[in-house]
Amino acid sequence: MIGIGVIGYGYWGPNLVRNFVEAQETQLLSVADFREDRLALARRRHPEIETTTSYADILDNPRIDAVAISTPVSTHFPLAMEALSAGKHVLVEKPITTTSADALRLIEEAERRDLVLMVDHTFVYTGAVRKIRELIKKGSLGDLLYYDSTRINLGLFQHDVDVIWDLAVHDLSIMDYIFGESPVAVSATGLGHVSAATENVAYVTAFYDTPVIAHLNVNWLSPLKVRRTLIGGSKQMIVYDDVENSEKIRVYDKGITVKNGPESVYKMLVSYRSGDMYAPQIDMTEALRTEIQHFSDCILNRKTPITDGHAGLRVVSVLEAATRSMKDRGRSVLLGDHPKAQLQMALA
Amino acid sequence: MIGIGVIGYGYWGPNLVRNFVEAQETQLLSVADFREDRLALARRRHPEIETTTSYADILDNPRIDAVAISTPVSTHFPLAMEALSAGKHVLVEKPITTTSADALRLIEEAERRDLVLMVDHTFVYTGAVRKIRELIKKGSLGDLLYYDSTRINLGLFQHDVDVIWDLAVHDLSIMDYIFGESPVAVSATGLGHVSAATENVAYVTAFYDTPVIAHLNVNWLSPLKVRRTLIGGSKQMIVYDDVENSEKIRVYDKGITVKNGPESVYKMLVSYRSGDMYAPQIDMTEALRTEIQHFSDCILNRKTPITDGHAGLRVVSVLEAATRSMKDRGRSVLLGDHPKAQLQMALA
Amino acid sequence: MIGIGVIGYGYWGPNLVRNFVEAQETQLLSVADFREDRLALARRRHPEIETTTSYADILDNPRIDAVAISTPVSTHFPLAMEALSAGKHVLVEKPITTTSADALRLIEEAERRDLVLMVDHTFVYTGAVRKIRELIKKGSLGDLLYYDSTRINLGLFQHDVDVIWDLAVHDLSIMDYIFGESPVAVSATGLGHVSAATENVAYVTAFYDTPVIAHLNVNWLSPLKVRRTLIGGSKQMIVYDDVENSEKIRVYDKGITVKNGPESVYKMLVSYRSGDMYAPQIDMTEALRTEIQHFSDCILNRKTPITDGHAGLRVVSVLEAATRSMKDRGRSVLLGDHPKAQLQMALA
Amino acid sequence: MIGIGVIGYGYWGPNLVRNFVEAQETQLLSVADFREDRLALARRRHPEIETTTSYADILDNPRIDAVAISTPVSTHFPLAMEALSAGKHVLVEKPITTTSADALRLIEEAERRDLVLMVDHTFVYTGAVRKIRELIKKGSLGDLLYYDSTRINLGLFQHDVDVIWDLAVHDLSIMDYIFGESPVAVSATGLGHVSAATENVAYVTAFYDTPVIAHLNVNWLSPLKVRRTLIGGSKQMIVYDDVENSEKIRVYDKGITVKNGPESVYKMLVSYRSGDMYAPQIDMTEALRTEIQHFSDCILNRKTPITDGHAGLRVVSVLEAATRSMKDRGRSVLLGDHPKAQLQMALA
Repeated sequence: MIGIGVIGYGYWGPNLVRNFVEAQETQLLSVADFREDRLALARRRHPEIETTTSYADILDNPRIDAVAISTPVSTHFPLAMEALSAGKHVLVEKPITTTSADALRLIEEAERRDLVLMVDHTFVYTGAVRKIRELIKKGSLGDLLYYDSTRINLGLFQHDVDVIWDLAVHDLSIMDYIFGESPVAVSATGLGHVSAATENVAYVTAFYDTPVIAHLNVNWLSPLKVRRTLIGGSKQMIVYDDVENSEKIRVYDKGITVKNGPESVYKMLVSYRSGDMYAPQIDMTEALRTEIQHFSDCILNRKTPITDGHAGLRVVSVLEAATRSMKDRGRSVLLGDHPKAQLQMALA
Repeated sequence: MIGIGVIGYGYWGPNLVRNFVEAQETQLLSVADFREDRLALARRRHPEIETTTSYADILDNPRIDAVAISTPVSTHFPLAMEALSAGKHVLVEKPITTTSADALRLIEEAERRDLVLMVDHTFVYTGAVRKIRELIKKGSLGDLLYYDSTRINLGLFQHDVDVIWDLAVHDLSIMDYIFGESPVAVSATGLGHVSAATENVAYVTAFYDTPVIAHLNVNWLSPLKVRRTLIGGSKQMIVYDDVENSEKIRVYDKGITVKNGPESVYKMLVSYRSGDMYAPQIDMTEALRTEIQHFSDCILNRKTPITDGHAGLRVVSVLEAATRSMKDRGRSVLLGDHPKAQLQMALA
Repeated sequence: MIGIGVIGYGYWGPNLVRNFVEAQETQLLSVADFREDRLALARRRHPEIETTTSYADILDNPRIDAVAISTPVSTHFPLAMEALSAGKHVLVEKPITTTSADALRLIEEAERRDLVLMVDHTFVYTGAVRKIRELIKKGSLGDLLYYDSTRINLGLFQHDVDVIWDLAVHDLSIMDYIFGESPVAVSATGLGHVSAATENVAYVTAFYDTPVIAHLNVNWLSPLKVRRTLIGGSKQMIVYDDVENSEKIRVYDKGITVKNGPESVYKMLVSYRSGDMYAPQIDMTEALRTEIQHFSDCILNRKTPITDGHAGLRVVSVLEAATRSMKDRGRSVLLGDHPKAQLQMALA
Repeated sequence: MIGIGVIGYGYWGPNLVRNFVEAQETQLLSVADFREDRLALARRRHPEIETTTSYADILDNPRIDAVAISTPVSTHFPLAMEALSAGKHVLVEKPITTTSADALRLIEEAERRDLVLMVDHTFVYTGAVRKIRELIKKGSLGDLLYYDSTRINLGLFQHDVDVIWDLAVHDLSIMDYIFGESPVAVSATGLGHVSAATENVAYVTAFYDTPVIAHLNVNWLSPLKVRRTLIGGSKQMIVYDDVENSEKIRVYDKGITVKNGPESVYKMLVSYRSGDMYAPQIDMTEALRTEIQHFSDCILNRKTPITDGHAGLRVVSVLEAATRSMKDRGRSVLLGDHPKAQLQMALA
């Protein structure tokens, strides 16, 4: 049994706690939050666990092997670093840190101490996203053409991050998982209606070395809740609608065929294909349950998590670039070919 | 009765012809197209009209007072200029021209000859868009916050324009009509999968002097047909779904309230409002019928069209800027404060 | 070429005329309607055809081989009988007649004269319904369990028939085509809000000799337009939504499995299956085009139409029974095992 | 504080327990179930409560003032009768009993002992149904024309009741609450595919003394989950879609207008109205929370519950009639004008 401590019992913490309680490989021992009323709620729901207003109690507890951190983004780095330094495995909320330099420091600390560092990129562990990756990997879609996601709703305005760091991070983590490559440049635009410093409407385009383009539309001020992603391929196309209760994924046998030869390119002889649509059955297990099993498996069997620190770093690198581009009204920002090497230099 | 000639009987021309035939104020006299099979089709449908493979026959016909041009975009300018020079009023397909300089030349020619120059910005004449403008003008939405449109489907690949000039032009003409102001800068990104020179997926952000942002998602390679526009206001928000047969417009009494005072700005005390939704009844008259009545009214009563040459010019100016931004991966392109003055200088 | 005359140019007649004009095997010669304004409309649309206010002109015209009748239901029998007597093949609007006795008379007259008698059960010729029949015939659904259709909208109130004869007739014709058997009894309920004599809301249940049940919900006073049919099978289930523009048919790999053995029957060990859903591509050819080709084929090649007089008779027999049941608040009415034999006796 | 015992911790019991725990006026003391594993689950979730395999422990407990019964339908009557006899107030799952005679016995026992007897007609306490009743009561709909509900899904097959007693009971309780009158006759049809004795597909029509009709379509074998009710009125119409997360209720300003005068009745001059649609904001409080507050209020302040024993009796009377009609293939069964009087005679 892996002894678990959870730091932060706000919006997401209760889900972590519930899943750690139910998982077979883990034993939840303690929950920390500086708000006494949140701890009272945790005790009502789980009378058997300890609670504390000091996260240091968790780091000092020798029975605790691993720590899950679900606190505001700006505290991810110091808390994760202290936890690693205290010899704990770490599962940290997304985004892993507020800068890629900090992400790299965590990666290096975890590697030095041979500890598991995993980011809670929850969507990667849903049946829907795993099915999409499976379809792409086995070639059902052909060449990837575009990824186009709309992730909008009313609220919740975040205090310490903008809408890109809050919502686009989900898509970036999905793209990191299902694409075989990372973006080479990012262009972003956005606007803040409440505070100019914090955009609540934003649009992000990611460019790749290959002829594929990704676009994310994120908005905290939409009257509708939309969670829809289109993934275009040269053979088939996917519509992933996460608001649907059933048939979240629909695969369309649709596309275009372009005739070969210079003449036909000139004449653009494009013909259209339209065949069956099907909605594959997908695993409906709660993502966090799958994720915590994976975290446990990585700890017990010394495996590298799917969403390890490097995945967290790659996502934060794109977020940083998007923020810079957004401040410059869409001017694209290049992503280093070898961000880790560059950062190491920067840290040197 | 206004004598009408139509040049171009391809995809859109038949709709123009049918509506000119049915309108009370107009008499359709002649249709020109260089393809004999299209003219044969026109004759089958309308045995009473003349057809010709030479548009010059239309311009030379003294019984023809006005000419409607529905030909490929690159021919709009020369045909419209010749028609104006021949003393004909002109209704020209969108976009008005391929450059703002050409649009300005048409405006000047029409003004010099005191002729009506109108662009076929069809959506402006739909009941839905007129209802949206009415709601905005009477203050129902409060301050405009954003305009966010998705206009995607499979096909039809155009030969001489990219997806922005084909699809985003609709939104730009709607925005020109319902907003009280023009964009000051544009950022665009996109990708061509068939030909690098012609983007078939594109994303456009328009910036304004006021805290409002507009975004257009256009795509010729989508498995779904989507025609959905969200218009966010500080009081109410509109969802305009043109694919719906009924309830195309839904008005949501939703939004946020931010408490005043420096302390609360610091703390971001954002609260959410959520009230009734309603779908106002809208006029379902065919847009082209309304548009042709307006064209006739402008000719007969010497009025300025809602979608006059200046509207056409404003839209083309944004399209030009978007094209330039897209070639530069999203770097924003400023739109002149006084495009007409600038262009006049450029032409001098 | 088959010479065609159309009697009745009201709501449906123009569709018949347009399709007869476009079909290769037929030549539309004449249209009859007693309303001069309808004939004027027909001439505007089709300047080449003759029009007459007297249907006798059509029956007397030796160049006319076949007559299509799209007039009020009560006139179907006398017009079709006269047309057959004049030696014309007949395509008659649904329902074929107002009584099964009349339907039988038409069948006998057509057989005696060796003429084609076909009923315009339009839905039978849609790609969607043909696909459903194909899926059932090849066993995809397993045993049929139920057919459950909702066909509701606002209007159009009919003058001479109730909502069952107007709307349920579509489902009865589909059921007649896709089921391998006819109902043995019918129960119907309904209510008239405008006139007690003409129900505008009605519900029909059809019973079969096998464990399958059909139910039709028809309504002229619904705020929504719904055209949705569920077809349950022991292996797969179909949802047919005719209001959808794409994916009209969805096939669900869902169902139940019941364990064998007396003990398990007692305990009702029902388990659920839930697999993929798929939407097969369907032929989108206009149904009437397919139907008219079939009508021509039957005339030219002496074939029996899919929707022949017997199909029309079977549908009218169920409609008659439903009407009787509805007057008696749902008491079920038996359908004769051999309606033709019974009717022949009745007529004797 | 009202001391509460809950008998039955199966599908619904946990919801009762959770709401009694959270309510301010009640203190949950004990839960009974004959399955030890269910009690273990209850203890894990609520370590503070007592559990017992003998419901008699609850009836004997003097600190318990009220008992909630969520057990199989066939046990409702004996358990509720024993509880009342032990002086406990009773909240019993729907349907109240399996026969109207038993329902009447409970009513009389509760009245004799001056105890609260309430049926858990949950939907009556939803914000949606309360809003519908409000709209009807204030005359927004005009005269009621019809109530048409579809309540279908895959599973759960019940062991001791058919699909009418399982699903139609919800609609009957809603109708009992929002209509001002009770049905006078019922016609029902149905079929059992697993067991002939237990119908899993059924259709129920209820007739009234006034020109209104109600129809319920219930099915345990549907590939889709549908929870949609249309309520037609002479002024406005409601679509209540309980599967929607937002805008569960839509009010359509649609309908027909019939011109007066014998001539126009003859000619059926029906014209159609079509105006705005609106979706009123509704209270999203969990229905069971509202219901338990009402139960507490009735106990503390000696009020009659909205869903008292008489409401339960009226619903069971319709269910009984539907069952009888279904066995007789739709023959309508009359409901007594004064069922209580009739039943009292029957019991005498």
